[in-house]
Amino acid sequence: MDRIFGGIEAGGTKFVCVIASGPNKIYAEERFPTTTPQETIQKAVAFFNAYQKNNNIKLSALGVGSFGPLDPNPTSKTFGFITSTPKPGWKNSDLLGPLKSNLNIPIAFDTDVNAAAIGEGLWGAAKGLDNFMYFTIGTGVGGGAIINGKPLHGLLHPEMGHIRLKHDLNFDPFEGNCPYHGDCFEGLVAGPALQKRFGQPAYNLPIDHPGWDLVAHYIALAMSDFICSFSPQRIILGGGVMQQTQLFPLIHEKTIQYLNGYVQSPVILENIHKYIVPPKLGNQAGMLGSIAMAMQLF
Amino acid sequence: MDRIFGGIEAGGTKFVCVIASGPNKIYAEERFPTTTPQETIQKAVAFFNAYQKNNNIKLSALGVGSFGPLDPNPTSKTFGFITSTPKPGWKNSDLLGPLKSNLNIPIAFDTDVNAAAIGEGLWGAAKGLDNFMYFTIGTGVGGGAIINGKPLHGLLHPEMGHIRLKHDLNFDPFEGNCPYHGDCFEGLVAGPALQKRFGQPAYNLPIDHPGWDLVAHYIALAMSDFICSFSPQRIILGGGVMQQTQLFPLIHEKTIQYLNGYVQSPVILENIHKYIVPPKLGNQAGMLGSIAMAMQLF
Repeated sequence: MDRIFGGIEAGGTKFVCVIASGPNKIYAEERFPTTTPQETIQKAVAFFNAYQKNNNIKLSALGVGSFGPLDPNPTSKTFGFITSTPKPGWKNSDLLGPLKSNLNIPIAFDTDVNAAAIGEGLWGAAKGLDNFMYFTIGTGVGGGAIINGKPLHGLLHPEMGHIRLKHDLNFDPFEGNCPYHGDCFEGLVAGPALQKRFGQPAYNLPIDHPGWDLVAHYIALAMSDFICSFSPQRIILGGGVMQQTQLFPLIHEKTIQYLNGYVQSPVILENIHKYIVPPKLGNQAGMLGSIAMAMQLF
Repeated sequence: MDRIFGGIEAGGTKFVCVIASGPNKIYAEERFPTTTPQETIQKAVAFFNAYQKNNNIKLSALGVGSFGPLDPNPTSKTFGFITSTPKPGWKNSDLLGPLKSNLNIPIAFDTDVNAAAIGEGLWGAAKGLDNFMYFTIGTGVGGGAIINGKPLHGLLHPEMGHIRLKHDLNFDPFEGNCPYHGDCFEGLVAGPALQKRFGQPAYNLPIDHPGWDLVAHYIALAMSDFICSFSPQRIILGGGVMQQTQLFPLIHEKTIQYLNGYVQSPVILENIHKYIVPPKLGNQAGMLGSIAMAMQLF
């Protein structure tokens, strides 16, 4: 019989809990809103314990891919804590601790974007690659990098949505929407920034609206920067904004234009449409990523 | 007796060849201009062979930190080649091959900035760290990253000098100097860009010239971007422009300002002067880095 794993996609808006043996073997799933840490964690624990009891099985491990900022350093006193989030009740709160003490199984803990990257690397659009990046462009913008086969953490963990992009205010006077940085990547292209810029939710815009060209412009500038910084073998773009699939060809064309021939690789120059791609696991990338983390830990 | 290693800091302007057992045990050094590949490589080979013969010793290994773009992938057919450089005679030229066939010792091959990073990690400003970055800001701008203890290569290798920075043309109408990207990091702060902007070599400017504030502004914007992208434990800034040590306090202050409290780590917030630092190996970072590479290979 297959080993059975648990996963939590711990988002700032909702938690997705899942029990699975792989991407095509999902046995149970539950979603609930992210309220207080105590209530939310208790619901997750109850879900996993009920499944184990009712099916008379023991989960082999759990993976948690969480919103942040968080502490992913296993040697730190606050390993597994959500740290400086503005989300009420969650600042400096212990997410991993109560899961550990209530479930008594090995738990892997990382950022939501690293989890999605790990899942895409095991089963999805980056299968077989050792160096790639995963971005979510939705309510916020976040990025995870797998380098030499391992997720990048560094000092804390990256905050890739907060790099500042080239932004000519004469060409585009929109000042951005990030409370910390104004016109950073997230401040220019996350959902709330688009809502502010267009005066309506971006998904209401027709697919041939010229606004998409501007959105693709900034995403392509970010892609060009990340290609120069990380030299990834592939970049995966997920999240709600990227559901607008008309963005992909625009991003492809502009990324090539902005790199301007400087990075001489046929992987980019001749195959950009296979280089910047949507997640193969679609909107399951997060929850399957948490299962992938659990499997890798086990 | 100590093992003896060879190193080459292969620059676009000059080659530095060195024989050493460590940073304080340098036995011989030779510098010569980078002319044709054949002549330059032949001079390097002659230097190492003469030393081995005259001293009746055998080098244990050689490290080569080279200008680029280059191919650092050991499984590639063109491993050890300089690839798309505009430098006359060097495009698609084999640097590693003739060294190997003439010296018959193990050779480690990487970018000049990765070499310097490896040296600073072993003996210098990043001793004991697993995740850090080294930048040279001089004739050009390049960056290397050590991640989880290993140099980052990815698809080819990073070209960190070519990220585009936030640049408000109203505030600063200078269009930059990079033939590929105009106002990228290198196009705004490398030596030739400063020469173009100020109409004279930057080292002629007095240290209280307001231009340094502008230079620090862009370097700090880049630091802020790289901190958000990589979350390094430390950043080392070397190269000719950074010999202007008055830049460091300006860069420290502005980096904190541009991050604006988003990355909550005392390592950055309380100790920025220990976080963005000059190389401890000074202008020997490159050549000692090549020795460090040879030692690691051995």
